[in-house]
Amino acid sequence: MNLRELAPEMNAMGAAARGGAAALREASPETKTKALLAAAKAIRAHANDILAANAKDMNAASDLSPALKDRLLLDDKRIEAMAKGIEEIAGLADPVGRELARWKRPNGLDIARVATPIGVIGIIYESRPNVTADAAALCLKSGNACILRGGSESAQSSRAIHAAMVEGLRAANLPEGAIQLVPTTDRAAVGMMLKGLDGTIDLIIPRGGKSLVARVQDEARVPVLAHLEGICHVYVHEKADSAMARAIALNAKMRRTGICGAAETLLIDRAVLQSHGVPILADLKNAGCEIRGDEAVQKIFPDLIPATEEDWRTEYLDAIIAVKAVDGVEDAIRHIETYGSHHTESIVTEDARTAERFLNALDSAIVMWNASTQFADGGEFGMGAEIGIGTGKLHARGPVGVEQLTTFKYIVRGNGQIRG
Amino acid sequence: MNLRELAPEMNAMGAAARGGAAALREASPETKTKALLAAAKAIRAHANDILAANAKDMNAASDLSPALKDRLLLDDKRIEAMAKGIEEIAGLADPVGRELARWKRPNGLDIARVATPIGVIGIIYESRPNVTADAAALCLKSGNACILRGGSESAQSSRAIHAAMVEGLRAANLPEGAIQLVPTTDRAAVGMMLKGLDGTIDLIIPRGGKSLVARVQDEARVPVLAHLEGICHVYVHEKADSAMARAIALNAKMRRTGICGAAETLLIDRAVLQSHGVPILADLKNAGCEIRGDEAVQKIFPDLIPATEEDWRTEYLDAIIAVKAVDGVEDAIRHIETYGSHHTESIVTEDARTAERFLNALDSAIVMWNASTQFADGGEFGMGAEIGIGTGKLHARGPVGVEQLTTFKYIVRGNGQIRG
Repeated sequence: MNLRELAPEMNAMGAAARGGAAALREASPETKTKALLAAAKAIRAHANDILAANAKDMNAASDLSPALKDRLLLDDKRIEAMAKGIEEIAGLADPVGRELARWKRPNGLDIARVATPIGVIGIIYESRPNVTADAAALCLKSGNACILRGGSESAQSSRAIHAAMVEGLRAANLPEGAIQLVPTTDRAAVGMMLKGLDGTIDLIIPRGGKSLVARVQDEARVPVLAHLEGICHVYVHEKADSAMARAIALNAKMRRTGICGAAETLLIDRAVLQSHGVPILADLKNAGCEIRGDEAVQKIFPDLIPATEEDWRTEYLDAIIAVKAVDGVEDAIRHIETYGSHHTESIVTEDARTAERFLNALDSAIVMWNASTQFADGGEFGMGAEIGIGTGKLHARGPVGVEQLTTFKYIVRGNGQIRG
Repeated sequence: MNLRELAPEMNAMGAAARGGAAALREASPETKTKALLAAAKAIRAHANDILAANAKDMNAASDLSPALKDRLLLDDKRIEAMAKGIEEIAGLADPVGRELARWKRPNGLDIARVATPIGVIGIIYESRPNVTADAAALCLKSGNACILRGGSESAQSSRAIHAAMVEGLRAANLPEGAIQLVPTTDRAAVGMMLKGLDGTIDLIIPRGGKSLVARVQDEARVPVLAHLEGICHVYVHEKADSAMARAIALNAKMRRTGICGAAETLLIDRAVLQSHGVPILADLKNAGCEIRGDEAVQKIFPDLIPATEEDWRTEYLDAIIAVKAVDGVEDAIRHIETYGSHHTESIVTEDARTAERFLNALDSAIVMWNASTQFADGGEFGMGAEIGIGTGKLHARGPVGVEQLTTFKYIVRGNGQIRG
């Protein structure tokens, strides 16, 4: 498809999405649930089609790294997980129509703030085909139409999954414009989405690596809800319980190293570097973690890689940790505010006042006391599935679940009030 | 100042603002109140300096239209109003630290969602010098540092007002970086702010006409909270109380025609065009309003200007109204969704079911039943002063007061939880 054909086609998708959004805005909770359950059923019913499509993607992907191939691969278990994921989203409380606040004015006006869908959401993602199901289901539940643009490597798989999602829409008599997949892998399509498709897209959510997110933030002319990076910190205060600090540091770093809530930097009070630090570093080393330490840390633990300035700014997403000695909570706060990414930070201490200081002073989306940073997750927060973790300041920070995919309007009820 | 000097100077302002934001984030409610009250006092104490500065601006503004000159002009009354406005903002409840939600997870994690300042807000405005005081006070109250860029016509006045605001900061031992005024009227400074000043600006708020807002939305690489336009509708349903419809239509259009909540289009059910429509149009005409009607309206009211397609899309901000006959609530909804700007719409009816249909179906920031659209205002909503009315979908819609100038973070308190 050439560019001259692409623009009208993309704009037509935008117009269809507006229609889809209008239908979803008025759809009852039951209708949306029906569509989602039917979509889950269709995913299972068409498992063979999806697997066949995925096999084509895998064949074409021979040049990819093993990690990327693993992201791309679907099997019976992953397809069942996709269907279950949609059913779980169907089971969440409907986020639309919630009364967020209500008050009465002296003149008798009754003002309610009520949750509403955002409208049309453009999702731009990379190679994981399951995002097609996840993102579509989260948008549908929150009453938003979506325009999905997956990676070229997963094009066949996404198309097959999208077909199942559309079957769900049809079963509930919802228009197909409510969940659309950009049919071309032409990168120009992404550029058009970022410009808003003639005013039809209300929000762009990029799901992918830093370079994708950076491109989106640079080119977008519509609001973006993005996850940039998670340089998460664990700070072991001098009054930390040593066993707790060991368990939290190990879990925060090593439970899963590739997620954004994984700890990347460990700060340890100089006073307990020997008593608390050595056992923590031994645990990490035994678990296969590479340790990069500052000078003080190098002195107490043998065979470290010296940490450089760059390490404090690095999101490894791997079994590597940067470790630094600090002089108390203020020093820890200063380090985190200087080098962190305002995602998730945790203090380990038995001292409540120090903990409160840490929790209040830091400007991060999530601040924790005596808990692993790996809890930075919509499911763990009890929000259900999430479309990602927002690292910006506006609209939503932290886990973005169905509630965060809504906006609100004010409903004002009067009995003839005019303004003086 | 040339561009090569400007960039480092602007970036230095950004860095100072980050320091200011850090101080404000930790400032107590009392400290912020103290700064605001001292600023109000300084405005009064330096009234003569401000008037002298304003006289210079007025002298240089001889080419401006009378309306623009009136916006620019300060007098004793306006200076007193500015000081009072700051005191009113000082008296509002502190929006920072509010617990927005709190819940406990089965594993014992205690999760609180707490309001926090956004950080550094860039305000770009036009000729009204009082915005310098308003915007700075609203940002300060909500714990945000601000970088103000006023119009070149009001440069001297803004500088004098800014000096008084800084006196307030000093009285409360807050850093001057918390309220900064861009010293140059070079337009390149605006471009630099829109790029975020090296990552220091979290949010841009433009206050001004459509062309300013359009430029900001086009060039900004940071989130924007903007007011685009208010094409507000009053819909007179066939079951409207005639006297109430007359009062609301007249007030919604004519109380003040230049505000964004003024009605621009009047929709009247065809069934009551004669009974309700004629008296409403007579009232409007008597009040000096120009009426532009569709064919049906032309038939029942003499000497109308025929309305064109363009009229349904026009924000007059003047004593002009477009009037159209519609066939019931669905037709009214369709018209508003097609031509409106999603700002504020009001239905006049005695029929509750029809009203609810209208309130639920429309995708506007504010929907009203039996009330004048001119209530679309932070003060009238009971929020206190507002920095404007947001017409976007993200973060905040409708009146943007101090609460809307905050974001939130999650505070998670545990006792050693690690993720399984």
